[in-house]
Amino acid sequence: MTDQSVSMGEDDPEAVIMDATYRAVCAHGFADVTMQDIADECELSKSSLHYHYDTKEDLLVAFLEQLVDEFEADLERLRSSDAPPADRLREYLHWFAVGTDETDRASLHLALLELRSQAPHNPRFRDPFRRSTTVGQRAFAEIIIDGQRQGEFDPDVDPDALAQLCYVAMDGARARQVTLGIEGYAAEVAETLHALLRDRLTPEAQ
Amino acid sequence: MTDQSVSMGEDDPEAVIMDATYRAVCAHGFADVTMQDIADECELSKSSLHYHYDTKEDLLVAFLEQLVDEFEADLERLRSSDAPPADRLREYLHWFAVGTDETDRASLHLALLELRSQAPHNPRFRDPFRRSTTVGQRAFAEIIIDGQRQGEFDPDVDPDALAQLCYVAMDGARARQVTLGIEGYAAEVAETLHALLRDRLTPEAQ
Repeated sequence: MTDQSVSMGEDDPEAVIMDATYRAVCAHGFADVTMQDIADECELSKSSLHYHYDTKEDLLVAFLEQLVDEFEADLERLRSSDAPPADRLREYLHWFAVGTDETDRASLHLALLELRSQAPHNPRFRDPFRRSTTVGQRAFAEIIIDGQRQGEFDPDVDPDALAQLCYVAMDGARARQVTLGIEGYAAEVAETLHALLRDRLTPEAQ
Repeated sequence: MTDQSVSMGEDDPEAVIMDATYRAVCAHGFADVTMQDIADECELSKSSLHYHYDTKEDLLVAFLEQLVDEFEADLERLRSSDAPPADRLREYLHWFAVGTDETDRASLHLALLELRSQAPHNPRFRDPFRRSTTVGQRAFAEIIIDGQRQGEFDPDVDPDALAQLCYVAMDGARARQVTLGIEGYAAEVAETLHALLRDRLTPEAQ
């Protein structure tokens, strides 16, 4: 959900556990990872893990929530850029493609896909995925609205509908790249989508 | 991969096994389904299943290959329509969204997503998924090329790039709908994408 690795203050045991969970999930996947795998990735004992999180599910839900928080923070950083909306749109699209060629990020995305297929059966896992959809779509919609306010983008387009398309296209492209191992696939989709949006949002520039 | 249920001649034992596999996979998922679950769904014994397929993996690979064959046949049926390319494009996009509100199809798509997250580790599963990507993208590209040949679509657009975008957007939309249970989500994305493509492919019609 984010392309920043999970890292916080080393003194905070929960941050240490989140870092260890990141590595353990990348190595074993969500279905197979155990509390022992996570303990093995940090200096803490399994019972220390259980002091902070009653169950493995509690820990994994906390980990998912943190990924969504980081995703939101990353998008907020991109949002606060002073670049013109058209450039920011391109930057956002490519940001979704970044990291899919890196082994660690690809492993995390694979693990998240696996977990997402379990989401309908478990609201505790489903809720963070729903939140990431809301956050991801809103980020695209805000750039389009900014562009309309600044008079750069066609005021007649529906920002929410285009944002939904941008989000699922990049999500689908990333999923296909990491599952099928087709390098550069998500970046190609970002480029096509950017050209199509540019034609639709700024038709007078043709 | 297809919105037709798996059904062939009832006399063919392999067709009976494929039908049973469809029901067992929808009920249990790919990771958890057993040869016994599949045998329970048909009149055959577990040893009869093993007569046709040495291992569970052999059976599941055959099932995946059949899904891709059906996907290809469904797309070929849509392709042979006499409707104008613009209408066929809309029909294709909506066809991808159809069925995601039906419990059985949603269960199959969930099971396929779960299996896709295993694809990088197993080429026997990865290859049918790669083939379905090729087949799905080609179907979109062929409509765009038809439209260009008939002088209806802008000859300057790259059919393969747009086809790739259409395919991943609808794939991503369907995945999000079935995992997060957001009804009508894929149909909304199909509508947005169709409007955007119409504007790009037939700009003179504005």
